[in-house]
Order: sequence, then C-alpha cells, then structure tokens
Amino acid sequence: MELWYTEEHTDTVRFSIKVKEQLYSAKSPFQQIDVFNSEEFGVILTIDGLMMVTQKDEFIYHDMIAHVPMATNPQIEKVLVIGAGDGGTVRELTRYHGIKQIDMVEIDQMIVDVCRKYLPQTASKLDDHRVNLYFEDGLKFVRTKENEYDLIVVDSTDPFGPGEGLFTKEFYGNCFKALKDDGILVNQHESPYYESYANSMKHAHKRIKEFFPVCKVYQAHIPSYPSGHWLFGFASKKYDPITDFNANAWNQLELKTKYYNTELHIGAFALPNYVKEMLEDNNE
Amino acid sequence: MELWYTEEHTDTVRFSIKVKEQLYSAKSPFQQIDVFNSEEFGVILTIDGLMMVTQKDEFIYHDMIAHVPMATNPQIEKVLVIGAGDGGTVRELTRYHGIKQIDMVEIDQMIVDVCRKYLPQTASKLDDHRVNLYFEDGLKFVRTKENEYDLIVVDSTDPFGPGEGLFTKEFYGNCFKALKDDGILVNQHESPYYESYANSMKHAHKRIKEFFPVCKVYQAHIPSYPSGHWLFGFASKKYDPITDFNANAWNQLELKTKYYNTELHIGAFALPNYVKEMLEDNNE
Repeated sequence: MELWYTEEHTDTVRFSIKVKEQLYSAKSPFQQIDVFNSEEFGVILTIDGLMMVTQKDEFIYHDMIAHVPMATNPQIEKVLVIGAGDGGTVRELTRYHGIKQIDMVEIDQMIVDVCRKYLPQTASKLDDHRVNLYFEDGLKFVRTKENEYDLIVVDSTDPFGPGEGLFTKEFYGNCFKALKDDGILVNQHESPYYESYANSMKHAHKRIKEFFPVCKVYQAHIPSYPSGHWLFGFASKKYDPITDFNANAWNQLELKTKYYNTELHIGAFALPNYVKEMLEDNNE
Repeated sequence: MELWYTEEHTDTVRFSIKVKEQLYSAKSPFQQIDVFNSEEFGVILTIDGLMMVTQKDEFIYHDMIAHVPMATNPQIEKVLVIGAGDGGTVRELTRYHGIKQIDMVEIDQMIVDVCRKYLPQTASKLDDHRVNLYFEDGLKFVRTKENEYDLIVVDSTDPFGPGEGLFTKEFYGNCFKALKDDGILVNQHESPYYESYANSMKHAHKRIKEFFPVCKVYQAHIPSYPSGHWLFGFASKKYDPITDFNANAWNQLELKTKYYNTELHIGAFALPNYVKEMLEDNNE
C-alpha cells in the first residue's frame, strides 16, 4: 500500500508527498487539521488541505519572519504575534533576550494543542514566561490596542477561511494604530508565481501601502510551499530594513541560524523584475 | 480524460502538471526527449523524464545563467556554450552587441531540432550570425582549446547520462585551460534541498574549486525545478562577481529583463547558512 498526500498548487499543478502514516485528523470549529508523517519532510501539518509547516523546512519560514524585523530593530521589546499556532515564530522570537513580552493571538486552540503534541520542534517555546497566549480572533484583538507594540508579526494562513480577515484594509489599519511610532509589521505575503497567490500578494501589498510610509517585500526559498518562492511583507512607521539595518549589531548576538544571515537579509529584498512590476502596477 | 506529467523529485516526492497534449516523443541516440503542452507552464521540454525548460519560467534560468557573468565582465567577446540545446542561453547572450562569437556545443542535435520546432521562444536566436553550432561532445570539444574564451557557460542536464562528463574534474580542468587569463566559467549547479541534488552540488563545487581562484555559488527561484531553489556556479580566474561588479555599466546597456536586475545580482550570491555549510564542509 502507498499513501500520498497531494496538494493542488493550481487546478493543473499538484505536489505530492508519500506519507508513512496519518498521525491526526480532526475538524476544529474553524478548519480541517491534519498531521502526517513523511520520509522526506518529516512531520507535516496541513490546514484545510494546504501545507502549513513541515519539520524539514520550517526553519526557513520561521527564520525569515522573525529575524528580519528583529535585526532591523534589535531594541524591540513588546511583540504581538497573530496566528502562528505551530509556535515556530515564537520559538525564534524567544531567542532574543531583549524581548520582554510576546502576546500571541491564535484563533484556533486546537492547532496549538495538536502542535504541542506532534510538532514539539516548533511548539517548544510556547511556555516561555514572556509569552501570553490568547485564543481569539486576531482581527478583534488588535482593534482594542493603541500605540502598544514594537513589532506585529502576522503569521497567517492563506486569505480564505479564518485567515481572510488578516488581509483586509481594516486589519492593517488597526495594526498601524496598535504599533508604536517606530513599530514594524511583518506578514506572510503569499507568492508571486501562480496567479491566485500572486493576486493575494498584490492585494495585501496595496492595502498595507495605504498606511505605512515604509512598505517592502522580501523573499525566501521554501520548498514545501507552492512554487517554492515565498514572500514576506515588511512595513514600518520608521525603520527601513536596508538603510537602518546594522549587521554588526545582529551578528554580535551570536544567534545560530540555519537559513538567515545578515548578507541574506539584504539579498532577500532584491526581488526579480517580474515581482517588482506586479507590486508596482497594482490594481488589485 | 486527464493527462498528467509527473516528475519524481525524490522517491517520495512528486510534482505533476496537467498536460493538454503530448506534442513530441522520441528517443535520440543520447536520451529520451518529450515535449508537452500544458495550461500552467505552456510548452514543456523534458529529457529522460526530467523537466528541462518550460515556456512559463525559462526566463528565470536563462536570465541568471547569462546576465550574471556578462554584467561582471561586460568586455566579454568570445563565448563557449556547452549544452543549452533549447537555445535560451544563446538568446540572452546575443543581446550583447559586444559579443563577437558564440560557439555552442550540444551533443544531441535532436534537441535543437525539436526546440526550433516546438520552442521558438528559446530557439529563436540560434541563427544569429555570431553563433557557431557544433553537434558533438562538449567534453571532447573543450579539450582541444587553450586560452581562447572569455566565458564558458555549462548549461547541462543533471549529472547522469550524457551530462555526466560535464561534472568531472577533467572537464573543469579543461575549461580552465580553454579560458583566457580573465575568463569566467558559469554552470548550472543543481540544488541544495533534496539529498541527491545536494550531493551533485557539493561534488561540482569541490571539483571547480580545485582549479579556479574565485569560486562562488548563486541562486534563483525556479518553480519548475525540484524544490524551486536552484543554483549556479560562478568560477573565474580573475573577476569577483560582487567586488568587480559595475552595476551602472550594465544598467547603461538598457537591456530589459524579466528576472535579473543589478540588485538581485548581488542578492543572488547571499546564500542561506545551510547551503553555505554544505559547500564549506564538503567531502563529496
């Protein structure tokens, strides 16, 4: 017998991973959650049939969503993380001794429970004393905050289902309000290659740009995500991720990372022309 | 009826593209050649069941293999291209008026004939008056050359079958000899993510480093290739692709490119730590 997990990257493109066993399957009040074990990618978490985290390549996503803003402003003390139920983003953030408080808002408690059990590699630092876990809607949570955070990380699913509200103008406006005067917003920003993802990317960029004076996009090679070419948004009230970046300061922290380094920090913002054009000529 | 092309990225990972029709299928004296038409990737050329070129994303590979060396030394006049039967590499090179001669050595004439018919998008410039086509073994061709070329581009298949000789110590040594004192060697350098490709990458890098004082690796996002994270080797007798790079000089040429730009030129050499470590601790 062979068991294969297949993800549709488009209607006519499929990515399949041979699975040793299905470890978990349940429907939460918000979404379908599955966990598989595979030879090539190790443990895999899928939500509504889309790959969210794999044991083999999660370091890439989590390095890039956490270290790029932290290296841009190493003075960050108070962080809001929205989504991120697997815990990988929090794991990377807790490595910074300068961070005093991390509020993590995940709508679906079942994701956290499942990852604590099946993905301790990512969930291991959710018990850090600086972390406050809130199981509620990030969209509503952020509405009540003003001038409070140094960094907001939006580590969301794709913009359908529970993740949809995290790609709206209202949400980005509330993030702006919730950030301090030198605050940074980083979000998972979809992908430029397949059309439906590219449309989400253009949509998000256009809306974030309406609020933030600094609004850039950076990229990483994430093999388990559609096309392998994944983007993150960097928006800020003050800091530019290149011109305000102090590589020496970050290197002095002596954090060991498997993907991120300070040269790649700069390189990640050097987008291909076709991606730059999509972000510029943007009527989404 | 549905027709799907499936490529095995590893024994347990598959990538599948829905195909409208198979346009061509034949076995040449060297390899199995197939051409498909697909909705997402347009026309696809496969060799021995592996994707070589797709109409949708070929611009990425060809931009990166041609413009990185040409922008590092815009004085390049005489070029040897090995493999590259689809013509895409030559198409990009012919855009440089400074290039006086391109010798292209492709072992398999059938590839060129098939691409002229089914992939005119890449093959269109093979008739340029500066191009000399040789249908013979690149390994043997380069053995007879000494101090002759400014640039050698090795645009090969993977290191099995006819491409195998193009990953050997003997071949790289002969390339070194065939290059002038300021010559550059660029090659397709496999991928760091899946183990068998990573082993080929380490193997190639170690062997090239034995001959060339400058030996670097750069990357691109190529969605149709395994993991989407693809590498190129840049080796040289003299020029460093970063410190000797003159972005203004290249920008003054006013070449329109869909992937390459001069910021990305530098960014592409900023490799993730896990890739750098593989290239450094290299006992392959």
